[in-house]
Amino acid sequence: MNFLEQLKDLNSQVKANISLGKLPDFTNIVIAGMGGSGIAGSIFSEIYDQVPVQVVSDYRIPQYAGKNTLFIGISYSGNTEETIQASQEAIKRGCKVKLVTSGGRLSEIGEDVTRVPGGLQPRSAIGYLLKPFLSSFISDSEEEYNKISHILKTMDEDNKQQKILAEEIVKAKQIPVVYGHYPYRWIAYRWKTQFNENSKLLGYSTFFPELNHNETVPLRGTYGKENFRFFTFGDAPDSITKRMIITSEITDTEFTRIETVGETLLQKLFYLIHYGDYLSYHIALERNIDPEEVNIITELKERLAGK
Amino acid sequence: MNFLEQLKDLNSQVKANISLGKLPDFTNIVIAGMGGSGIAGSIFSEIYDQVPVQVVSDYRIPQYAGKNTLFIGISYSGNTEETIQASQEAIKRGCKVKLVTSGGRLSEIGEDVTRVPGGLQPRSAIGYLLKPFLSSFISDSEEEYNKISHILKTMDEDNKQQKILAEEIVKAKQIPVVYGHYPYRWIAYRWKTQFNENSKLLGYSTFFPELNHNETVPLRGTYGKENFRFFTFGDAPDSITKRMIITSEITDTEFTRIETVGETLLQKLFYLIHYGDYLSYHIALERNIDPEEVNIITELKERLAGK
Repeated sequence: MNFLEQLKDLNSQVKANISLGKLPDFTNIVIAGMGGSGIAGSIFSEIYDQVPVQVVSDYRIPQYAGKNTLFIGISYSGNTEETIQASQEAIKRGCKVKLVTSGGRLSEIGEDVTRVPGGLQPRSAIGYLLKPFLSSFISDSEEEYNKISHILKTMDEDNKQQKILAEEIVKAKQIPVVYGHYPYRWIAYRWKTQFNENSKLLGYSTFFPELNHNETVPLRGTYGKENFRFFTFGDAPDSITKRMIITSEITDTEFTRIETVGETLLQKLFYLIHYGDYLSYHIALERNIDPEEVNIITELKERLAGK
Repeated sequence: MNFLEQLKDLNSQVKANISLGKLPDFTNIVIAGMGGSGIAGSIFSEIYDQVPVQVVSDYRIPQYAGKNTLFIGISYSGNTEETIQASQEAIKRGCKVKLVTSGGRLSEIGEDVTRVPGGLQPRSAIGYLLKPFLSSFISDSEEEYNKISHILKTMDEDNKQQKILAEEIVKAKQIPVVYGHYPYRWIAYRWKTQFNENSKLLGYSTFFPELNHNETVPLRGTYGKENFRFFTFGDAPDSITKRMIITSEITDTEFTRIETVGETLLQKLFYLIHYGDYLSYHIALERNIDPEEVNIITELKERLAGK
């Protein structure tokens, strides 16, 4: 599949029948995952709060992780060294361990493995990686996933809006900064990583209302502000919308506001994810850059392995 | 106190006798705090992992927060609307609620209030705000805090290194980006916020090894890289040090590495905090800007309150 086909694959991924299987009893959840795989866990951690959920993006897991912990190790390739090491530690500690992967070494170290189809860039498998969390904890309604699929397909057919935005950003040589808000804080981070990997742009994310306590200060008349493009998302509660409007006014900063499409939280989440996919994809094309290629990450892994 | 005196006050803050008092039984901790107050909770959350600790920087608290939750609401001024609302909700839910503040409305809504001395900028009270967490959960050794105080005082007397770095940054018109690593990820964020508030500079933070899965890509030859200055910290495990070196080499990016000073984790934490204090302070002076003034945050709060 070429990269555009991978992006378009998302609408079928969300309909795939993937879950974590029978859930054991647990009092907390620890998720280990890096980059595009870890983001699935982070997005889940923001919309599920019946028990404490901690996502670790590192080699280590917290001390409290033990027999009452549901540990979920997630690595699309199955060969992420941080996630493998964290998962091995979770097994040693007696956590209830579930692993999500398309294969690789991760599939061999545990017994309870949820397999997802391989062959994609990890970041383009976000549907496959989110689905086990969503169907096991949030919703398993086929109708809901059909609706999401329809929303994504509509964007696959028409993403002119994203293309126009991409042209503006490249023309002005801007660095994107995404201001999320609950429950879209990790969508903002997903956008940041898509700008990094697809567009090969630096990019950052933070969120309302926290940014009103620090980043708002330099938004008024700092040097370098003209090098950035600031995004906000729609579907905010009144208290946050008010903050967005006032922040923009008193700092004289334009925010590019991306409205959500959809009726439910899941529909809106996937809409915003896909919006960032296309925006970062079009930026790459505008820059005459291959959106798929991330050779440097492979190179780094080889150098780390001493090759 | 002028702002420099506030920075210098840190060495006496760490010796102050402030704790959360008797701790109840609990199975998880939820901390509510924004900006400079919330950072104290975040730094604590990275070095204490005997139970799940979640810092919420928002109006809301997670659904699981209930009678087995130790809830700590922290606001230096005591008038932060997000923290007040979160704390009220925690009381309603039957959490075990402790509040940390110098006064304001927060001190009136709960019964178990830890009072810290007032009169400083919240970000300059980081010692007072960290101390309750540290002495209640990590260490209450007077000797340790004397050593920390000595390390801080040494920097108060000689911060030429930070001044030189500041001159370079301002001269080259750079935006600082701080690459932390466990257990200094939130110190990196603290630096970001100090750049924002003291230096009035945009600035960002992320961490190793996560950034090797995304931000490493644009570090090789993107547009705009020359506008940034990248920082890393010392005292990393071998696996992370190796990542820092290889990342720098294969992306041809210079990292400004700040080594730690001190023997224990707490000593190193405070050293790095104070390093960021002085670096951001000197950047402000280089820019002929008042490091203390954050009028826009006050203005924003007034506008939000409809004044």
